[in-house]
Amino acid sequence: MSDVHQEILADVFSKACPSRDTLEHVTGRWGILAMMALTEGTFRFNALRRRVEGVSEKMLAQTLQALERDGFVHREAQPVIPPKVEYSLTPLGEQTAAKVIDLVRFLEGKLPEVLAAQQRYDAAKG
Amino acid sequence: MSDVHQEILADVFSKACPSRDTLEHVTGRWGILAMMALTEGTFRFNALRRRVEGVSEKMLAQTLQALERDGFVHREAQPVIPPKVEYSLTPLGEQTAAKVIDLVRFLEGKLPEVLAAQQRYDAAKG
Repeated sequence: MSDVHQEILADVFSKACPSRDTLEHVTGRWGILAMMALTEGTFRFNALRRRVEGVSEKMLAQTLQALERDGFVHREAQPVIPPKVEYSLTPLGEQTAAKVIDLVRFLEGKLPEVLAAQQRYDAAKG
Repeated sequence: MSDVHQEILADVFSKACPSRDTLEHVTGRWGILAMMALTEGTFRFNALRRRVEGVSEKMLAQTLQALERDGFVHREAQPVIPPKVEYSLTPLGEQTAAKVIDLVRFLEGKLPEVLAAQQRYDAAKG
């Protein structure tokens, strides 16, 4: 199957399309924050965990593993003692992170509008 | 507090920032698909449920309620028998959906690259 053919078939609306899983890795809470953090540079695990406030060790490990498997994150393990493992974005990860950041910055900018809508909604229900 | 001041404060990296919740409503699996579907027009609940393949009635109801509260989705209940309720995007929802679609189309297009990365990863581990 050629790339072009696969490209045409990808449809996130379809339950069976693997693009749904990849979309979730990128747009899950921790996926978004990990990718955004990695646009700032290469991180060791614990430093990344401090940057992504609130993430558990287990969730960050799972998130990075899924992003590495999808080809967004590069994991570099150096054979030294103590072990040194560094995470960075691949070129595909950089491109993807740029789209994610565009969405996040937009929503951060619209937060006052969102909070006002929430107040109106709650007042109408209340 | 002025809008400008709130805008500067919004920071998705901060655990306490309400932008994190809004981001999740928009980028959750069903939030993404519901907003994308609504760019195609106004939908009644059951029609939208058919369009967003695989979503349960409960999850779609929760998703739409969160998106309505945030001001992305407009819910129009007409006082007729049987009740007629229609969902559409607000102007803010339209703008947001455009950013989401940009990310999704990008990832759909990169799916062959992602699948190839997954195969390499699994082969190396396997």
